[in-house]
Amino acid sequence: MSSTPDLNCLDLNCLDLNCDMGEGFGAYAMGNDIAILDHVSSANIACGFHAGDPPTMRRIVGAALSKGVAVGAHPGLPDLQGFGRREMKITPAEAYAMVVYQVGALAGFVQAAGGRLNHVKPHGALYNMAVKDRALSEAIAEAVRDFDPGLVYFGLAGSVMIETAQALGLRVAGEVFADRSYQDDGSLTPRSQAGAMIEDEDQSLAQVRQMLGGSVTAQSGKTVALRADTLCLHGDQAGALDFARRIRAALSADGVQLRAPQRG
Amino acid sequence: MSSTPDLNCLDLNCLDLNCDMGEGFGAYAMGNDIAILDHVSSANIACGFHAGDPPTMRRIVGAALSKGVAVGAHPGLPDLQGFGRREMKITPAEAYAMVVYQVGALAGFVQAAGGRLNHVKPHGALYNMAVKDRALSEAIAEAVRDFDPGLVYFGLAGSVMIETAQALGLRVAGEVFADRSYQDDGSLTPRSQAGAMIEDEDQSLAQVRQMLGGSVTAQSGKTVALRADTLCLHGDQAGALDFARRIRAALSADGVQLRAPQRG
Amino acid sequence: MSSTPDLNCLDLNCLDLNCDMGEGFGAYAMGNDIAILDHVSSANIACGFHAGDPPTMRRIVGAALSKGVAVGAHPGLPDLQGFGRREMKITPAEAYAMVVYQVGALAGFVQAAGGRLNHVKPHGALYNMAVKDRALSEAIAEAVRDFDPGLVYFGLAGSVMIETAQALGLRVAGEVFADRSYQDDGSLTPRSQAGAMIEDEDQSLAQVRQMLGGSVTAQSGKTVALRADTLCLHGDQAGALDFARRIRAALSADGVQLRAPQRG
Amino acid sequence: MSSTPDLNCLDLNCLDLNCDMGEGFGAYAMGNDIAILDHVSSANIACGFHAGDPPTMRRIVGAALSKGVAVGAHPGLPDLQGFGRREMKITPAEAYAMVVYQVGALAGFVQAAGGRLNHVKPHGALYNMAVKDRALSEAIAEAVRDFDPGLVYFGLAGSVMIETAQALGLRVAGEVFADRSYQDDGSLTPRSQAGAMIEDEDQSLAQVRQMLGGSVTAQSGKTVALRADTLCLHGDQAGALDFARRIRAALSADGVQLRAPQRG
Repeated sequence: MSSTPDLNCLDLNCLDLNCDMGEGFGAYAMGNDIAILDHVSSANIACGFHAGDPPTMRRIVGAALSKGVAVGAHPGLPDLQGFGRREMKITPAEAYAMVVYQVGALAGFVQAAGGRLNHVKPHGALYNMAVKDRALSEAIAEAVRDFDPGLVYFGLAGSVMIETAQALGLRVAGEVFADRSYQDDGSLTPRSQAGAMIEDEDQSLAQVRQMLGGSVTAQSGKTVALRADTLCLHGDQAGALDFARRIRAALSADGVQLRAPQRG
Repeated sequence: MSSTPDLNCLDLNCLDLNCDMGEGFGAYAMGNDIAILDHVSSANIACGFHAGDPPTMRRIVGAALSKGVAVGAHPGLPDLQGFGRREMKITPAEAYAMVVYQVGALAGFVQAAGGRLNHVKPHGALYNMAVKDRALSEAIAEAVRDFDPGLVYFGLAGSVMIETAQALGLRVAGEVFADRSYQDDGSLTPRSQAGAMIEDEDQSLAQVRQMLGGSVTAQSGKTVALRADTLCLHGDQAGALDFARRIRAALSADGVQLRAPQRG
Repeated sequence: MSSTPDLNCLDLNCLDLNCDMGEGFGAYAMGNDIAILDHVSSANIACGFHAGDPPTMRRIVGAALSKGVAVGAHPGLPDLQGFGRREMKITPAEAYAMVVYQVGALAGFVQAAGGRLNHVKPHGALYNMAVKDRALSEAIAEAVRDFDPGLVYFGLAGSVMIETAQALGLRVAGEVFADRSYQDDGSLTPRSQAGAMIEDEDQSLAQVRQMLGGSVTAQSGKTVALRADTLCLHGDQAGALDFARRIRAALSADGVQLRAPQRG
Repeated sequence: MSSTPDLNCLDLNCLDLNCDMGEGFGAYAMGNDIAILDHVSSANIACGFHAGDPPTMRRIVGAALSKGVAVGAHPGLPDLQGFGRREMKITPAEAYAMVVYQVGALAGFVQAAGGRLNHVKPHGALYNMAVKDRALSEAIAEAVRDFDPGLVYFGLAGSVMIETAQALGLRVAGEVFADRSYQDDGSLTPRSQAGAMIEDEDQSLAQVRQMLGGSVTAQSGKTVALRADTLCLHGDQAGALDFARRIRAALSADGVQLRAPQRG
């Protein structure tokens, strides 16, 4: 991996734990951001389109920076009512512009607080659409690179998101999930199918340990190669804090370091 | 003026001509931005709250940069339906956050296009409220300074906007109007009063020439000191282009240079 | 009662208990609407401007109708980020149109569910602005009357809201508060002043009992006449359910009937 | 057709001419609504989601009623930035609720002005999605029926929109286009294909005349049966007024009456 600029957790025996944050809006609260900041190494902060508003963004950016958690932008579709989870037919040019806008806005708070933006992770339907659509993937990665080529790009491990971002010279972090099962091609089992969710925590932990070794066992039983740089924690779920503690203890027992990917 | 960092057009025999731009939204067009870019030295570009959307912002930023026009952010109140012209009771903390957000978003497009943001000018009701409210004025200026202390802050000439921004160490540009009459205290005659608007172009030109000398004749006939750094052109009005041409010709005849204030 | 169209609780020995509801938005929840429906006689349902979205409106309208609770529209300012609590300088014509729009939308769900809209209560800053501004008050009441002259209009007891609505021939319900202290002119003590909130439940109950007799003791000690038709319960506060139970028990012990005002 | 409640222009030798209207927003104007009202029999008025705001809705409803033009609601997707033209993955339940909301809001203005809502025509991507998706089509038609079973439902002639609405007992009006070519199955040629648009006005007129006889010649040359109840005029296109005049003159010469479908 010496030829590419990104951090490879396989070689370094480390893992990033990321969590979506700042997803309240105005009078509406969501998640337990401040408590979760003690358990993660990267915070993906909503940028006002699917969730988040300026005072919330300022507050969470400040809290993350003060706790030494790496700050990332979490741009989404302009659909507050659907929380950015409803696919929209947008053009690559629209995707480019909405990513620059949101990343710029979030970076504004980081800059005003004296910090530096570390990464970008697309949210919800924008993420899922990018996994399936190369042109959209490229437009998003171009927006990130044009805004700041030193940023780390978080995308689904092994997907076209990672491929297109790497082709543009971006540092990437392959994202994996502890609570989702995988298919033979390395994609996530769609939520509409049986066995998509892994509800047993022990099984989730075992999957994470296997991933740190560079593979995952797909639903079919087949072993699939997979590069795990960053693990997504779902902060809005009950038990998120407990699971975060268990993951950290397990990683620690294995001698794996919790660490955010480094920007350039 | 050597002790303050800002450019003083009185000393330098120059004037900036600024115009609000990028005020379309989605399918809606407004103004004649591209044509007006040939006649101004500074473009105040809407940031998505009172007007403007990501693709529009990208397009106008690119056009301004390619024509050598200085690019500024034009943050407004979150009121697209009212075009940011309806006063809203917001706290200074809310004002701070909404300015950082919008300036960051606009700066994102400037950065992605390889340029550099030059100034910030609050829009509409946010501008008018800042003129009347010191705490709001301070919060807006702090947001600009925290985001980038080298930016030039555009505010009503002689108002608390300029005073508070200078106190924070920001470069400032006092904005004047060719088509508005003034009161004895240097404020604009409210639009609700007779004689607020100067409709005669020759009179407007004469007022601009007097302002370049450092004063304006108020409605009462009294001569009021006024520092004119930047003149606001209303791009959405019929005749804006013609008036821009006349102003430029008059300034040229007087040996006054058209020039944007320089950021630090 | 034959001379005025409205129900007067003084004469009838009854009281309406109203609560704001349906104030979630998309993925965001707020309040405990379904539980509170068992304790109130009128539900004021958010209409999408300050809170509420179409599926939420449909759900809460359905729940209220199925429990026999009177359904009202709760129109607010177009400011989701500020939850409709930030005053905005709108014209009476704008107020008229935004009330017709929101009342029509909420009435759409009531009509589709086979019910009938019973009342309208302005929300937050729109309510507070109406108390202070006769022209705004008139515009809101005209919107209600033009949409449906049989609706009951909820406004601050003794205020210009009630006065203007009555002048237009609307049925009105004077709203009172158990947890707020009053001034000599019958207005609420501003929240910014000491003693604005009544935090002791026994004192709140005593105030409600006095109000049912047609008066309230102002902060100064003076007894002020006040007509109490409907009592506002704050559903988003901890203890709301418990207090609702206490109020109902106390009213029952006093032989006061819990009852929504009847539309025409 | 005596068994179904809808008006059949084939039998009655009449045609409705409809136009989308009220598509401005706040400070943004669109189209030339007032002039076009003199040339159409039905106005589809935007309801605030893809375009339109309360004061605009009030104004256009008033103008249409005063000119005797039938008023319809034109509900769209909640995407002002995309003008409702970007497909969104919404559930049938979401579609139902957003149609009730918007139709209710528009009906509010009609009711406040003393008129009666006549029809509903879905807008843009919502219309196009309904043509392709039976479940969505049913949800939209159910929303219309639940709100007011007497309304006329406008949908693409011969499509599942019409079929599902008729199955629910709604009056329907099959919409046809003068400036679009057709496929063998009665669908419109997708805009992405050559020959989708008919740019020659004489050819457009000839197509309308043929449609009044109950058929259209598809691109392949095949004659396809088609029931034309209402013709869509694109008010935002240059030449719309002229074409409207020509259509009306041609219909008049043919003895065809310009008439809106009647609600129940």
